[in-house]
Amino acid sequence: MDGRPSMTQPVLKALILAGGGGTRFWPLSRVRRPKQLLALDSETSLIERTARRLEPLVDSADIWVCTTRALAEQIRRELPKVPAEQILAEPEGRDTAPAIAWSLDRMDAGGDVVAVLPADHRVADESSFRTSLAAAASVAAREDRVMTLGVVPRWPEPGFGYLELGDVEDESLGLRRVAAFKEKPDLETAKVYLDSGKHLWNAGIFVFRGGRLLDLIAEHAPAIDEGLRAIREQPEQLATHYSRLPKLSIDFAVMEKCDDLATLPLDCGWSDLGSWAALAELLPADSAGNATRGRVAALEARDNLLVADQGTIAVIGVSDLVVVRTADAVLVVGKDQAQKVKELVEMLGRGDFADLL
Amino acid sequence: MDGRPSMTQPVLKALILAGGGGTRFWPLSRVRRPKQLLALDSETSLIERTARRLEPLVDSADIWVCTTRALAEQIRRELPKVPAEQILAEPEGRDTAPAIAWSLDRMDAGGDVVAVLPADHRVADESSFRTSLAAAASVAAREDRVMTLGVVPRWPEPGFGYLELGDVEDESLGLRRVAAFKEKPDLETAKVYLDSGKHLWNAGIFVFRGGRLLDLIAEHAPAIDEGLRAIREQPEQLATHYSRLPKLSIDFAVMEKCDDLATLPLDCGWSDLGSWAALAELLPADSAGNATRGRVAALEARDNLLVADQGTIAVIGVSDLVVVRTADAVLVVGKDQAQKVKELVEMLGRGDFADLL
Repeated sequence: MDGRPSMTQPVLKALILAGGGGTRFWPLSRVRRPKQLLALDSETSLIERTARRLEPLVDSADIWVCTTRALAEQIRRELPKVPAEQILAEPEGRDTAPAIAWSLDRMDAGGDVVAVLPADHRVADESSFRTSLAAAASVAAREDRVMTLGVVPRWPEPGFGYLELGDVEDESLGLRRVAAFKEKPDLETAKVYLDSGKHLWNAGIFVFRGGRLLDLIAEHAPAIDEGLRAIREQPEQLATHYSRLPKLSIDFAVMEKCDDLATLPLDCGWSDLGSWAALAELLPADSAGNATRGRVAALEARDNLLVADQGTIAVIGVSDLVVVRTADAVLVVGKDQAQKVKELVEMLGRGDFADLL
Repeated sequence: MDGRPSMTQPVLKALILAGGGGTRFWPLSRVRRPKQLLALDSETSLIERTARRLEPLVDSADIWVCTTRALAEQIRRELPKVPAEQILAEPEGRDTAPAIAWSLDRMDAGGDVVAVLPADHRVADESSFRTSLAAAASVAAREDRVMTLGVVPRWPEPGFGYLELGDVEDESLGLRRVAAFKEKPDLETAKVYLDSGKHLWNAGIFVFRGGRLLDLIAEHAPAIDEGLRAIREQPEQLATHYSRLPKLSIDFAVMEKCDDLATLPLDCGWSDLGSWAALAELLPADSAGNATRGRVAALEARDNLLVADQGTIAVIGVSDLVVVRTADAVLVVGKDQAQKVKELVEMLGRGDFADLL
């Protein structure tokens, strides 16, 4: 399983991580309909678009998805071309390191190059995205090292983690060593990063030979390795063993500790669609700056995001608001406070609004 | 029918004008559910409260309502104690002068004192309201003159018509002659009116002997008188004759031309509930100043009016907004622009939103 890479270009497989239960798009997103299942900026769900984006490069038969039991059936319906048994359902969420390790084991991907990608991001230039991914896969196969695709930053964003760039290894490819992983910075630091030209946004996209990553997990997160072995020995005890896996992100468990990680820059109109405000930036707007979806009437209103999933939204005179209407709820929040939706959802959970989660 | 008043106190009848199709409470108010049928600030519709407010003074058997054909059945259901045949249905709306004249004719109220009142106003102190109304009825009976109840102004309101006060006729009652009717003033003039102490808000409440008002209509609006006679002669041609009545308000047709009109001041927490902003002033608010009805969740939001007729309204960080949610629509507007709802509804009517009117 952890044999040396073959000399021929290996198969590229994809592992889409789709276990998130994000709350930032409430009231459209719900526990049982998280962001990856929403069609936020088009008519197609983000996960379906993530899979379609890969298809010219990765055959559907080589796409795997790791999600939760609650979402697996919905995702199978969203991705009918992906073999149903490749939509893996975690017994519970244990963060990305256990999800990736367990999935690689199920994929039997020791000798294959695997691209791990979040299910719920947006890419404007898909061709450029695939070119970068193919280049990363090539380096990962040739040098048997872990690659990441870092996004060329477009503004000083305090909401993302950053990759600090080290030595240039291949000028023509833009291949550089990753010197360090940087946590979400404050705004000042984010500005310094942007100006430095030596930082990329960490988009959570990694490419590696499966066996190589499992070796790194064994080295840096032995508890996960032991748990995987227990699962292999007692697959009928999956839930029990899985619940004992340490809850760790792949960044923390492996990537930050891996000293020959390299990166290729991704400049493809990437967005993590992290909030309603991020969506507002991406949707086309009318002459008054209102970005709308669904049935909307606006009188003397400017620069709003108006999303009517059901019914009609009518606004008069307001500006820079997010208004989202679903069959059972409506949210009104300033664009500049859209990150507080998470806090609101927590409040709803504590109160008498559990039916709206 | 137009005989002299009897020497004993005559019966007091009420005529509630309920033909309005107001748009200012959209999306809660609709063409077929106008303001008078809404329970804006309580659990009871404004028209039912208007009738109940009268009952200690006016027997249900003496309450009449003038409305449109489209609304008559709904109003009969709202007012089960009022005899069904006393809910009069105009063939079409021709403003208040034809409505009152035709209703008085149907009421056979020549010798009775009749109080005419709008169906959709709010009164905080109902006992004080009835005291003023009874006093006005007394003067109307005793002196056979048209009385109006003018509201003691509480702020310089440019949205109302005003009564300019003339000579004091009875200091103890506060009875004064009405010197003139004043159209809606600009704000500066409204301030002058308020400071003068010689102006009252015209609340559209009039008290008179039925025959007296019909005489005044015959004198000042002969076309209405002729139309009434035609209707009496050919009741089966009601719609035809009614459609020919001049569209005039009772103020314009009669009151402004009547030189012995008198008024008693009304100081009973009256409100015409003219807009969502007016309702916001009246509803109790939480510690953050949010006045709410229905299911509402507010995070760091201040001084909003949040009305959820169906579903949940959630707001974050916003202030001084009106948010109203119904099964099919949601409205978001600043309190200071609430008067533009009318304009929005006109826009909806011109567009593809006729189902929401």
